[in-house]
Amino acid sequence: MSEIVFYDIPGKTEDTKAWSPSTWRTRYSLNFKGIPYRTEWVEYPEIEKVCKEIGAEPTDKSPDGKPLYTFPVIHDPSTNTILSDSTPIAEYLDKTYPDSPKLFPPGTKGFHAAFDSAFYSILARTPSLWNLVALGACTNLTPRSEAFFRDTFWRRRCDETTPIEELAGSEGSERKEQNWREVEADWVKIGTWYEASGGLFLTGGETPCYADIVLAAWLVWARQSWGKGSEDWKRLERLDGGRWGRFMKAFEKYEAVV
Amino acid sequence: MSEIVFYDIPGKTEDTKAWSPSTWRTRYSLNFKGIPYRTEWVEYPEIEKVCKEIGAEPTDKSPDGKPLYTFPVIHDPSTNTILSDSTPIAEYLDKTYPDSPKLFPPGTKGFHAAFDSAFYSILARTPSLWNLVALGACTNLTPRSEAFFRDTFWRRRCDETTPIEELAGSEGSERKEQNWREVEADWVKIGTWYEASGGLFLTGGETPCYADIVLAAWLVWARQSWGKGSEDWKRLERLDGGRWGRFMKAFEKYEAVV
Repeated sequence: MSEIVFYDIPGKTEDTKAWSPSTWRTRYSLNFKGIPYRTEWVEYPEIEKVCKEIGAEPTDKSPDGKPLYTFPVIHDPSTNTILSDSTPIAEYLDKTYPDSPKLFPPGTKGFHAAFDSAFYSILARTPSLWNLVALGACTNLTPRSEAFFRDTFWRRRCDETTPIEELAGSEGSERKEQNWREVEADWVKIGTWYEASGGLFLTGGETPCYADIVLAAWLVWARQSWGKGSEDWKRLERLDGGRWGRFMKAFEKYEAVV
Repeated sequence: MSEIVFYDIPGKTEDTKAWSPSTWRTRYSLNFKGIPYRTEWVEYPEIEKVCKEIGAEPTDKSPDGKPLYTFPVIHDPSTNTILSDSTPIAEYLDKTYPDSPKLFPPGTKGFHAAFDSAFYSILARTPSLWNLVALGACTNLTPRSEAFFRDTFWRRRCDETTPIEELAGSEGSERKEQNWREVEADWVKIGTWYEASGGLFLTGGETPCYADIVLAAWLVWARQSWGKGSEDWKRLERLDGGRWGRFMKAFEKYEAVV
């Protein structure tokens, strides 16, 4: 089969080469399934232009009502398909490459949708993880992308009244501890689902499914934003008896950036 | 095997003989698995006494810190087991009777826990379903149980400032419409999980699992509270292209009250 072209957003260092938590879902999916692909790196301000050029559909609307173009996007020459958005891409990959490992094990599509509701109702309730990773995430972009990201995405999604530099709170401050208390409560709660599964991953074994990838994509983003050796990352790794440290350790084999 | 004894709470009419949304989970579970059982009917004010007599554990704490005893409880003479709480009972039944249909299909325990979070975050956000069913549910109990229920359970869980008689709002009132708009939004949202599943039930086919039973137990409670021929029930049945009407139709074969 011909190589898939995977459109991704670059970070500015070797350690944060693949920058976005949304595109990480697709990178993990492709690596997990072992499907050959190459990456087309596109800076934030060019995403809309590239999508229009290749005919990728917008995934949402801007507050001003205009179509919003986002990555990930894939182009699969073997089926002449251009597809936007991580979950449709994952479904497409399962359908088009049925001999590769399944992202959605049989009978779990409905459960995956409920999982999404559960996960995003937790993330939406507390902006604490955003607060803690925001500054590192921004400054891991190239200057052009960083300026664009601050001006558009961040303004649309986040607390506009507090400068990004102040969201996390300084080391040891009550603001930072409050953010951490919320992050800890959220990820301990998510941990109860994994405890119920009886295994490392949500289906109860050692093989991840798409729901695990959704979490890993957030966690890898947090890890990159803080740095792997940072106290913040170590704190998340240690949480809940080391659950998320073990979880991300097991994901390392799917983290190749090609 | 010896017959399981299933402790349940009676309603006052033949149509509402099995009253509680919590015990309906266990009744559906037993009927779905085809496990022989008989029902021991216990009025609300006697639940604590009966649990203590047979050695059933409390499932929660009252606001005053005292242990809280609730149904369902089962006594399985074949393993000499007394067990409280619907989800542990469902897990016990799957484990003890492995040749019966599975409530938790392999690999779905973690997903079931996430489903619970998703479902209860929706129910907890809006008290609208409670508001709409409250009065009918109360008055379907026998006078002794009704008095106890109003005095304890209702006071603990619900809006204390509005009398139960006024929670739903009168026919055609803005209060009632507001309750209904919220119920409709909630169940359309839950419907998106089913849409993703591709089938009638959450695993995508015609066979329910425990997550489906959790929803059916709420819906049967609503149906009983309103009455099967009521406009309220018809409104819920018709919602979302008739999704919940078809869903509950398919559950009828598991509704025997023995």
